[in-house]
Amino acid sequence: MIGQMMDFQLTINSVMRHGRSLYGNQEIVSVTSDNPLHRYTFEEAFGRVCQVAGVLADMGLNAGDRVGTLAWNDYRHFEIYYAVSCSELVTHTINPRLFPEQLDFVVNHAEDRVIFVDPTLLPALEAIKDKLTKVERIIVMTSEEHMPDSSLALECYETLLAGRPTEFTFPEFDEKTASSLCYTSGTTGDPKGVLYSHRSTVLHAMGGAVPSVFGLTTDDIILPIVPMFHVNAWAIPYAAVMSGTKLVFPGPKMGDGAAIADLINAEKVTVSAGVPTVWLAMLNHLRETKQTVETLTRIIVGGAACPQAIMEEMEQAHGVYVHHAWGMTEMSPLGTFNTIKPELSDLPADEKMAYRLKQGLPPYGVELDVFDEEGNAQPHDGTSFGSLRVRGPWIASGYFKLDKEIIDENGYMDTGDVAVIDEHGYMQITDRAKDVIKTGGEWISSIDLENAAIGHPGVAEACVIGIHHPKWDERPLMLVIAAGEQPSKEELNAYMSDKVAKWWLPDDIIFVQELPHTATGKLDKKVLRTQYKGYKLPTA
Amino acid sequence: MIGQMMDFQLTINSVMRHGRSLYGNQEIVSVTSDNPLHRYTFEEAFGRVCQVAGVLADMGLNAGDRVGTLAWNDYRHFEIYYAVSCSELVTHTINPRLFPEQLDFVVNHAEDRVIFVDPTLLPALEAIKDKLTKVERIIVMTSEEHMPDSSLALECYETLLAGRPTEFTFPEFDEKTASSLCYTSGTTGDPKGVLYSHRSTVLHAMGGAVPSVFGLTTDDIILPIVPMFHVNAWAIPYAAVMSGTKLVFPGPKMGDGAAIADLINAEKVTVSAGVPTVWLAMLNHLRETKQTVETLTRIIVGGAACPQAIMEEMEQAHGVYVHHAWGMTEMSPLGTFNTIKPELSDLPADEKMAYRLKQGLPPYGVELDVFDEEGNAQPHDGTSFGSLRVRGPWIASGYFKLDKEIIDENGYMDTGDVAVIDEHGYMQITDRAKDVIKTGGEWISSIDLENAAIGHPGVAEACVIGIHHPKWDERPLMLVIAAGEQPSKEELNAYMSDKVAKWWLPDDIIFVQELPHTATGKLDKKVLRTQYKGYKLPTA
Repeated sequence: MIGQMMDFQLTINSVMRHGRSLYGNQEIVSVTSDNPLHRYTFEEAFGRVCQVAGVLADMGLNAGDRVGTLAWNDYRHFEIYYAVSCSELVTHTINPRLFPEQLDFVVNHAEDRVIFVDPTLLPALEAIKDKLTKVERIIVMTSEEHMPDSSLALECYETLLAGRPTEFTFPEFDEKTASSLCYTSGTTGDPKGVLYSHRSTVLHAMGGAVPSVFGLTTDDIILPIVPMFHVNAWAIPYAAVMSGTKLVFPGPKMGDGAAIADLINAEKVTVSAGVPTVWLAMLNHLRETKQTVETLTRIIVGGAACPQAIMEEMEQAHGVYVHHAWGMTEMSPLGTFNTIKPELSDLPADEKMAYRLKQGLPPYGVELDVFDEEGNAQPHDGTSFGSLRVRGPWIASGYFKLDKEIIDENGYMDTGDVAVIDEHGYMQITDRAKDVIKTGGEWISSIDLENAAIGHPGVAEACVIGIHHPKWDERPLMLVIAAGEQPSKEELNAYMSDKVAKWWLPDDIIFVQELPHTATGKLDKKVLRTQYKGYKLPTA
Repeated sequence: MIGQMMDFQLTINSVMRHGRSLYGNQEIVSVTSDNPLHRYTFEEAFGRVCQVAGVLADMGLNAGDRVGTLAWNDYRHFEIYYAVSCSELVTHTINPRLFPEQLDFVVNHAEDRVIFVDPTLLPALEAIKDKLTKVERIIVMTSEEHMPDSSLALECYETLLAGRPTEFTFPEFDEKTASSLCYTSGTTGDPKGVLYSHRSTVLHAMGGAVPSVFGLTTDDIILPIVPMFHVNAWAIPYAAVMSGTKLVFPGPKMGDGAAIADLINAEKVTVSAGVPTVWLAMLNHLRETKQTVETLTRIIVGGAACPQAIMEEMEQAHGVYVHHAWGMTEMSPLGTFNTIKPELSDLPADEKMAYRLKQGLPPYGVELDVFDEEGNAQPHDGTSFGSLRVRGPWIASGYFKLDKEIIDENGYMDTGDVAVIDEHGYMQITDRAKDVIKTGGEWISSIDLENAAIGHPGVAEACVIGIHHPKWDERPLMLVIAAGEQPSKEELNAYMSDKVAKWWLPDDIIFVQELPHTATGKLDKKVLRTQYKGYKLPTA
């Protein structure tokens, strides 16, 4: 029997209606390429969203057409987010950090008919201009006076908007309609497109709005340093509108520690989110200038594991609580968020830190578990490794234009990560599945082993790969770049032996001059596995 | 184009999975009819939910069948909530405060096949036992030793559960499936059933979990004094599980100020929700015993307008912040919640109080507006009256087994209330639509006029109704029960003239000995309108 409740659609349009009607006076402050500090209200923002929608309506686009953005976090990008998705078109956020061949690939794979581009990012488009065969219009996100010279045919954002009505009748459609598209920046193969829906976006924002995650209120002021060009800046542009929270956008200043600190202090930012390197840059600046960030109370760190040193300095020097978070492009991205449960709150600081360094707890809306190779759920004991699988309303069921099944019979997607879950439910990523070393039916985390070695003063960098072993299937081989005086194998093994289980210790250690890395700076273990294929371990 | 996201269903089952897997150690504490203080964990609770599901599975019920509950807020009622809804059956929560003829009506209209009843509420069933023709089984929520004597054939809850497995494979179904049924306790006509769905229930809990509403965390301890037998205790049994929040259930002690205060202090309750009379009772007790409620930081008051005196005493004497909330059975019930926006936070206390006494702001998920008789949206100026219409994913689209359209062409339901919305978005109910006086195209709030009169020391009770007027369509007639010396009409009009607009003043005032009231204690204006039909006003 079906309930008798309204068939109200969870669309981004409804988020916009909510924010405009209730929090019209709330502010959005932006650094942009053409203005050091732009400031307006939600009411003005959504009035301009209607103007952008008018521009789009005149273009003769069809429902579902992709509109690309190549832009920083600022108010115009925010306007395009809402205008495109609410017009039943798809916002394709393009990552400007892609290599030219990847940029060309995603623009053509997405079949973007229009691209909105920040003036500072125009060179990236110019570099691939011969490949942009499907792009009909390129709109530069600036005013007439700041329009750049270019060999491309460009239109001016502000000129297109000028004089248009600030009200617009948006179409009505099903909540499962696609709203935005983001390509994974995988290290192997072509980027894969994740096609978010209005429903997934709204539920993701609602799931992230709760007190145990972002916990945004009308009194908060949030600075998203996570980019709007990737996974929708962790839904902050939606969650803030839902919660009536003032937004501060850093524009092209995302990696600039001094600019970030100044923006926090000038706008009284209370909460922010960013990758570890952003916080390293800010901490360096604060240390050098003996400044602090008074109003900031908490930050959310994701995109990479947050070093303990950042957590400690943020907290001890600046009174800023650091929450670890973890996610994936395929997860919109919110997968887990780290808060300390009441049952752990009385632990000594160092024991609590061990929990805080884990990836955290899934919010309502994410179900996750770890499974062995036969698909058996593993115990939640903090030590049993397993493939991490996830399911929920904001997790991908497939990739754009790829005929590839990514859901198992229980509705889970395999993350490609190996993880453990402890007895309190905290998830910790231990390795990428393809890098884990499978030995005698057990798994060894290559990352844990590398981290054990890196603590030794004679080790600059370490990399562990699995080598075929006639008896154990695989055994670990460690490659080390020495720092200063090269330690002996025995010394290094002895050093690691109280940090990992004895049977984890590598069967051999090879000192090398350099190690291969991917374009994003990660160890390229694929190359090493090929290079060391057939290597004979001393124990074999 | 449809997004490529998982088709994950928003079911109460998913809330249960979340709470059990992540917050298994969290507590549920209950006062029950058979135990002054019962205590167990979420893990134990959901283990027993599985046992109840096993009992239900053995009964041969069909998907969608209704299972009645006639019970207080306690852990067994909680278990039945989850077990019934998650088994694709419908929890019909029966209000024990209904008159026998209404009780008989709702049980038969719902076609309850099973009823779970608290031992203390069994007499209500016995009183209508000849009418219970469709009820097959009556299960008393207690253990064998506490089973009451009865002329009805009864089964024992604990005996049915004993020895059953604490795991259960629940069915999978669409999120639009009905989950629970609650009848309105309207003052006129038969009660009407609102049939909630899993989707509406989950979204309502998510919408209420955000910081600007309940804002529950794992550190909170919540005491729902709003009854589980009506509108699912404002979703607290779901929101608390979603948020990992400790639950404290007052059982039959809901109206007992001393018991409530003791429970708050013993269990360190931080947040609670209840109708004004509950708080009056608690405040009286605290005043008499010179006690306080240390841990309590905030309460949510709804069900009736919260008197300013309660807000002030709660805040000044006990440091408890009072949030006004408003809702309806048809709205699950959350409609608005009162928090002070940043733009109002610097107002002097008395001006802020004027905002705090309003019904509040809609959370994301509720859209509301006020309309005139031609369906034109009224200005948000704090004075323009209009019919309050609402829409959203947790609002009813119809009534159970009633062929009655309740949604207009824009998807709104008319609440039957007249309200104003101010420039900051705060909604304030001014009258019931049927009681408002329509005069010369403008509306007069009968309630505002009554409140203006009641302040006069010579007025014990006042009631205003509209009387036909040849020129103005309707004009107000005031009926007054005098207190002590009866004031003159002129004196009373003069007294009211600086409290309401001049043209609002009643055209006549009649002093009466008594006024008719409904069963729930409200003025019965229907009776008065019949009685005074054709009354000739001096101005006519």
